[in-house]
Amino acid sequence: MTRRIAILGSTGSIGRQTLEVVDQSGDALQVVALAAGGNWSLLFEQVKKYRPAVVAMMDPIAAEQLQAALQAASIMVEVHTGQDGLIAVATAPTADMVVTAVSGAIGLMPTMAAINSGKTIALANKETLVAAGQLVMAAAKEKNVAILPVDSEHSAIYQCLQGQDCRDLRLILTASGGPFRDFSLEELVQVSPEQALRHPNWAMGAKITIDSASLMNKALEVIEAHWLFDVSFDAIEVLIHPQSVIHSMIELRDGAVLAQLGIPDMRLPIQYALSYPERWTASWPRLRFSDHPNLTFRAPDHERFPCLALAIEAGRAGGTAPVVMNAANEVAVHAFLAHQIGFMDIPRIVRETIQAHAWQASPNLDGILASDQWARENAAMRVAGGREFSG
Amino acid sequence: MTRRIAILGSTGSIGRQTLEVVDQSGDALQVVALAAGGNWSLLFEQVKKYRPAVVAMMDPIAAEQLQAALQAASIMVEVHTGQDGLIAVATAPTADMVVTAVSGAIGLMPTMAAINSGKTIALANKETLVAAGQLVMAAAKEKNVAILPVDSEHSAIYQCLQGQDCRDLRLILTASGGPFRDFSLEELVQVSPEQALRHPNWAMGAKITIDSASLMNKALEVIEAHWLFDVSFDAIEVLIHPQSVIHSMIELRDGAVLAQLGIPDMRLPIQYALSYPERWTASWPRLRFSDHPNLTFRAPDHERFPCLALAIEAGRAGGTAPVVMNAANEVAVHAFLAHQIGFMDIPRIVRETIQAHAWQASPNLDGILASDQWARENAAMRVAGGREFSG
Repeated sequence: MTRRIAILGSTGSIGRQTLEVVDQSGDALQVVALAAGGNWSLLFEQVKKYRPAVVAMMDPIAAEQLQAALQAASIMVEVHTGQDGLIAVATAPTADMVVTAVSGAIGLMPTMAAINSGKTIALANKETLVAAGQLVMAAAKEKNVAILPVDSEHSAIYQCLQGQDCRDLRLILTASGGPFRDFSLEELVQVSPEQALRHPNWAMGAKITIDSASLMNKALEVIEAHWLFDVSFDAIEVLIHPQSVIHSMIELRDGAVLAQLGIPDMRLPIQYALSYPERWTASWPRLRFSDHPNLTFRAPDHERFPCLALAIEAGRAGGTAPVVMNAANEVAVHAFLAHQIGFMDIPRIVRETIQAHAWQASPNLDGILASDQWARENAAMRVAGGREFSG
Repeated sequence: MTRRIAILGSTGSIGRQTLEVVDQSGDALQVVALAAGGNWSLLFEQVKKYRPAVVAMMDPIAAEQLQAALQAASIMVEVHTGQDGLIAVATAPTADMVVTAVSGAIGLMPTMAAINSGKTIALANKETLVAAGQLVMAAAKEKNVAILPVDSEHSAIYQCLQGQDCRDLRLILTASGGPFRDFSLEELVQVSPEQALRHPNWAMGAKITIDSASLMNKALEVIEAHWLFDVSFDAIEVLIHPQSVIHSMIELRDGAVLAQLGIPDMRLPIQYALSYPERWTASWPRLRFSDHPNLTFRAPDHERFPCLALAIEAGRAGGTAPVVMNAANEVAVHAFLAHQIGFMDIPRIVRETIQAHAWQASPNLDGILASDQWARENAAMRVAGGREFSG
């Protein structure tokens, strides 16, 4: 049976790799809807190849360019725009499954719309669960919708959990440690975006690569895992594992630890989410222990990587804390990429924004979105104002 | 619901650890039958504590001593003897499950009897599958009897297999490499039984410890895995992993590798076989990566450890080859333990005995037992005759 998929973020790293998996899947997968941000020329190529029924571009100007190109090529498909456009793709009537591969909290509303339309979710947008885990999981439960993780760590955990007695579950999330894992605090203050973008193991988008360098990504993953697997923060451990061969682990109540290993290639977790519960033969390279004769492990250093504890603390606090933390981080990362702030200003801006916000325990979706908006504005002021906003 | 278990080999290493698991299990396990070889005083203590309905000692003189001690203590239980005694324990009417923890091919007939009585098997006696894998698995299938592995490697694989799409399965059996993994060929010729018995990671019985030192144990495990998991020899890899933290791995058709990790403690795989498919909370120590910051891997060295390829080759040949290989190895290991031959005489005697035997493709159980007997006598002559029997 062919699975019909919609992809939010089809021109990004995960989106493009999802299409590679589609290409290798024979007739098992069919693309019925595509959405992207502003890369209209790549989306144009994808539309020509996959002929989706629904198309959207976040950026209205890029949407116009795409529409013109499609008309010139005599391809009749309406291009939706903005958040409503993403939601149109996420709820495309012919889609069984939605791959949420956009970056940032912008994925929240389309993901909620897809859940409410009964679509299976292949979740590659961790910010959605960070911002509104409680609401998203409750909606998924109510609609009896499966959320299949695409993040390599969460996919590893999901793979390990199959068929197991999961009472008293503990999770061990591995982290490469990023490009700066051996940098001193003094060196970290000086690093450039260009250095941060050179991830040692994984080829990913810019935002997640910076988050990997600051270990913020691992904290977001801890919060994501908390929601996805209903495990308390005390039962989730982060372990630095520079080789990225063990993608994550679970510890069961008898002490057995199960791990999923592989080469660092996102196509495997993407495909697992799309083939689940089956597995499909794949042509990508296999893990060879002759290439990885040493696997090493160490505890994370919270002094050099304050984002880790800071963001997990926001996750523990719950309510509006994680959405504010996440929004402030998105603003700070973009400011760092634009050379407006230094690398170690990221945790400072996140911490100060969290401290400045009026915490609410049980926000509804509107409250989450309002907190997200407030945090973006507050963090942007801190970027613009430099040190004068320091607490 | 209480599971009622019979233990074959209750005074050995696995048997004693099985009873520790029973002690920790509350009311989940009850011991209803016990069999041992010749250690009557320990079996006496076990009978006093667990009050099994059926008891056996392989050695008739020890059985008499046990019977006398039990009478003196006013414990009314008949002590069966010899192989018929083991079979009486393996088929004890009140047992749901039989733990086959005897060492060597002596486990074959009782295991077959237990299967034919419909008992679930917790298999800790790999020689049974090595000698007669085809017949044992066919009987288990016919009687719809589950064979749950107790060997740590096979338990690891079994744990990983749960809930997975196992088409095109590959297995990666890890091996510590034993106490001599870094010895030169010249050093190996000179090693003593006392050195061989000092296993770096696992506390086990004498026979399996010598087999671990020669890598014969890993070859027996490859053959066991071939039968238990219906995987071809070409799809089973042996990987030296000195730290014994990864207990074994599976590779699935999409390239994902799943592993079970833990401290080297046989109580976990024993308990998993007894609790399956549940897991029970346990008080033994947990794996801590701070104690194991480096995991290493390398290919086995076939020149220094010829038993590995030799025995796997017998497994591939099938028919009477593996039972002859296994019997010759049992004789050679006991001769080495008795200081009658050197360590590197073990593979020589095994090879020569295999070469001398008249191979049959499809032996029945009688044929297997006859080949076992012939091989024991032939190998014993080679032990006695020293080099004059060399090929």
